Amino acid sequence: RLDQRVTAGLAAWFTQLVQFPITAYLRVKGDPSTAILACKVGVSCCLMSVLVMFEEDYPEIKGLALWAVITIALVYEANIGASLSKGLNRVTGTFLAGALAVFVNHVGPLMGPFHFYFVLLSIFVVTWVPVFLRFGSSLKEHWNYALSMATITAHLLILSGYKKQEKLKMPVARFLMIVLGFLVAAFVNLLVKPKYAGNTLHKLVTKNFKTAADILEQCVESYLKGTELEPVPDILAGRMGGDEVHRMYDEIVMSDTEVDKLMNFVSWEPCHGRFFRGYPWGLYGDITDNLRYTVYTIIALDGCLRAEIQAPQVLRDIFANEMRELGQEVGKVLRILHQSLNEFRTFAISDILQQAEVSALLLQMRLHDNAHRLLMERARTPSVDEFWKLAPGLQYQAVEERTERHRYRPVEPPGAAGDGPGVENGSDNGTSETAGVLPEDGSLSEDDRPGLPKRPGDESPNAQAAWQREFFLRRDSLGRNWDGTLERIGAMSLVKFSSLLIELVAGLKFVVESVDMLSKQARFEGPDLSGDDW
Amino acid sequence: RLDQRVTAGLAAWFTQLVQFPITAYLRVKGDPSTAILACKVGVSCCLMSVLVMFEEDYPEIKGLALWAVITIALVYEANIGASLSKGLNRVTGTFLAGALAVFVNHVGPLMGPFHFYFVLLSIFVVTWVPVFLRFGSSLKEHWNYALSMATITAHLLILSGYKKQEKLKMPVARFLMIVLGFLVAAFVNLLVKPKYAGNTLHKLVTKNFKTAADILEQCVESYLKGTELEPVPDILAGRMGGDEVHRMYDEIVMSDTEVDKLMNFVSWEPCHGRFFRGYPWGLYGDITDNLRYTVYTIIALDGCLRAEIQAPQVLRDIFANEMRELGQEVGKVLRILHQSLNEFRTFAISDILQQAEVSALLLQMRLHDNAHRLLMERARTPSVDEFWKLAPGLQYQAVEERTERHRYRPVEPPGAAGDGPGVENGSDNGTSETAGVLPEDGSLSEDDRPGLPKRPGDESPNAQAAWQREFFLRRDSLGRNWDGTLERIGAMSLVKFSSLLIELVAGLKFVVESVDMLSKQARFEGPDLSGDDW
Repeated sequence: RLDQRVTAGLAAWFTQLVQFPITAYLRVKGDPSTAILACKVGVSCCLMSVLVMFEEDYPEIKGLALWAVITIALVYEANIGASLSKGLNRVTGTFLAGALAVFVNHVGPLMGPFHFYFVLLSIFVVTWVPVFLRFGSSLKEHWNYALSMATITAHLLILSGYKKQEKLKMPVARFLMIVLGFLVAAFVNLLVKPKYAGNTLHKLVTKNFKTAADILEQCVESYLKGTELEPVPDILAGRMGGDEVHRMYDEIVMSDTEVDKLMNFVSWEPCHGRFFRGYPWGLYGDITDNLRYTVYTIIALDGCLRAEIQAPQVLRDIFANEMRELGQEVGKVLRILHQSLNEFRTFAISDILQQAEVSALLLQMRLHDNAHRLLMERARTPSVDEFWKLAPGLQYQAVEERTERHRYRPVEPPGAAGDGPGVENGSDNGTSETAGVLPEDGSLSEDDRPGLPKRPGDESPNAQAAWQREFFLRRDSLGRNWDGTLERIGAMSLVKFSSLLIELVAGLKFVVESVDMLSKQARFEGPDLSGDDW
Repeated sequence: RLDQRVTAGLAAWFTQLVQFPITAYLRVKGDPSTAILACKVGVSCCLMSVLVMFEEDYPEIKGLALWAVITIALVYEANIGASLSKGLNRVTGTFLAGALAVFVNHVGPLMGPFHFYFVLLSIFVVTWVPVFLRFGSSLKEHWNYALSMATITAHLLILSGYKKQEKLKMPVARFLMIVLGFLVAAFVNLLVKPKYAGNTLHKLVTKNFKTAADILEQCVESYLKGTELEPVPDILAGRMGGDEVHRMYDEIVMSDTEVDKLMNFVSWEPCHGRFFRGYPWGLYGDITDNLRYTVYTIIALDGCLRAEIQAPQVLRDIFANEMRELGQEVGKVLRILHQSLNEFRTFAISDILQQAEVSALLLQMRLHDNAHRLLMERARTPSVDEFWKLAPGLQYQAVEERTERHRYRPVEPPGAAGDGPGVENGSDNGTSETAGVLPEDGSLSEDDRPGLPKRPGDESPNAQAAWQREFFLRRDSLGRNWDGTLERIGAMSLVKFSSLLIELVAGLKFVVESVDMLSKQARFEGPDLSGDDW
């Protein structure tokens, strides 16, 4: 398995290598920022390399100066904050290790015969402590690199200095070289087209609002059109072919991790652009959290499109106008917040929610007004066969049906009450009174189902029968209402959808407040008066 | 800001340093695994250091042998998979860089006067390409370390070999030393109490099922008790003091990132324990995805506990038995899955969902049976004042009220229809006919609200009035149904809660299927027949 992976990896590398100039060119054309970053690193390293190459007559200094080159290559990260953080980690780690090494190498020889063991103990301690701290997660993760760095520098300096006369030169030289490398890297990085974590964070959070608006509007439109989407797990199974909406809300939920990471870096960055000293970066976390909870509600709305129980189109049409309006109003609020962040402009907090709140109220009134129809509308009377697919009551049958091996026919259940008003469904009337659909051929018993684990012997023959008994016992206790049930189940789905939409407005309030707080603390400009189109 | 952070960081370090022995002791007592890992790294490094220290007479070899020590310190990660992956990355990177350096150092001198520029170009290329690949995200992330390693090794070897006679010894020695270090690290790591990513992954996924069962059961119980929790944003604001449930579902949703990370590592691990060669690790991703969608539904359920509109307790009591049973049944299924994973035992797929599905059906029947009560029950008639707090229709007023600066009194809105049946609320009857609550003192106009941005002048005076007009226009168009609306809103919340509960069962099917597939492909044992308690 390992060698397969290595072979595959090397093969992939080789293919990449051959195709590299073309793919690289295409990528650079699409987004030059990575190429620019790579050029910055390359030029910085070359600058330092020139110094190393001119020092060819002083091999000792040359060996040390190499550390400056390597430092440059290592401290460049995707953005300024990460680079500065890593550089300072490296400098700090080197400094601590250097101090320790000087101490060990001075004290060691005084130990006489125990010198060897003292050095060994030091090695153990400088290894044990950082590993313990790194994986024990007591320190913040962004100090991890300093800990690694301290360990390897301490190894290098303690072992190099062992039984040497000159004890101070190497630690000092190494520290200075690493500081030099860091300074060159930071200088070039900040001067030439800097890429700030702050910008990335702001853009990410801003983009999430647009994405949320898009998926919400699309979701409401689909619902009103009566679109049924595949259940989520089918998308998960073949994620690549999955639908766009699903990918989009996954993106927002998971951006939380990315936001947390970027927030670690922004505080290391000098002020730039609109991001002044003391910029309220912490609020981006609140905004993301609040927006995530809005997205959870949108995911629940989306779940209604994928549920097995669906409201009939006639019902949806009754509430279509109010739902559409509410969806559009909420979408509009999200877009206003997007625009506010995008253009660094404030918005009037009381105004932007008003329309959405009025729409929510109107939908509530509409729901109440049509409550009788939600209950009484026999818009779509599923056939008995259909019911057993729709109702979650016997979903494992649906699972079975996927294998297309078993067919079910309605049978007379033992002791069914059968005195209900009857389902309005002519063709199936004979059986719908009982509404019991159970396999005639015993296909639900464990033994002849392929691929399912055999149940232990003593339970197997009676398990299904026992379940049947219990089901009909319970069903009978409900009496005559049973037969009418399923016609109304669809309406529940609609109430849920509406209720979630209304809840969305309640949650939105907090999102709006958090963005509003940011807009004040971050000193956004007043609203743009030239354009009235939002 | 930077210096503040550095100072704070150093201060924190110093405090940690002083308290370190105590905290370390307590932590080791609690969970010795990190301490064991640290000991493994420490011992491995000491072993290699002994070799270095005995080679004191051969300074050149000593310098190179140091690389073996440093390699050991660097390739230890939190688990075997990550360590092996990093080690192979390091070896691969070193090998590629070594080959390249040998080539450059042999071809370079043939260039005559262009030797210098050729070396500089090489430095640029070996820097540019890896940076471009690393941040352009075309390669999988777990090859990143090989790329960094290749860059710095190439720098080291190319610059060290520049204008030197001996060109082959150093690259070869360095490569061998790194391989040696990697082998020692891997050997010790695998032999002494190995900590596998596979175990961690399995435990994480297993634990998520228990957590999901806990939060679901707690959520349903709270709902039936009528508990109202604080809205999520209030928890988010002071996350540390937040409630347990919230932390728990955040944990499950966010464990997705951790699962992805661990899944990168498991394939590098040799078989161990119950995890044989070709173990279906990929299914853990499916299980996590499916469970996450179940948790989204649980979050939506939890949202009902935090909503502003709440179903009256009388209604909840009507459905309490069915809801509780359904909640318990779903919880039971999740616990069976937890136990199945925990004990590596199969379960009978058809049996475990039956009870939950029957409960879902019973709840549906119950809902239908009591549909009239959902609509007609005047269990709790909020006062008009209360309504304006409850209804999301005017939530920004609630925002205002938080500042406790403004008071609102019902006023007669212009042109209100007022011909409704009247809210059953004696004390407020005089005003409830109109049900319009608007500030008397004009406090809703922008200008005297503190902290809110001023609206542009020409809109400000009329904005509120325009909104009022529209609101009452719309409200009038709905006529007499308006006044009865709010009494029934609470019932919608209950329908939503029930509907989500029922949906949970539908989603559970996919979770059960994915765990079932794992149990087969991973060759779990048959169910435990000795205990019948689940």
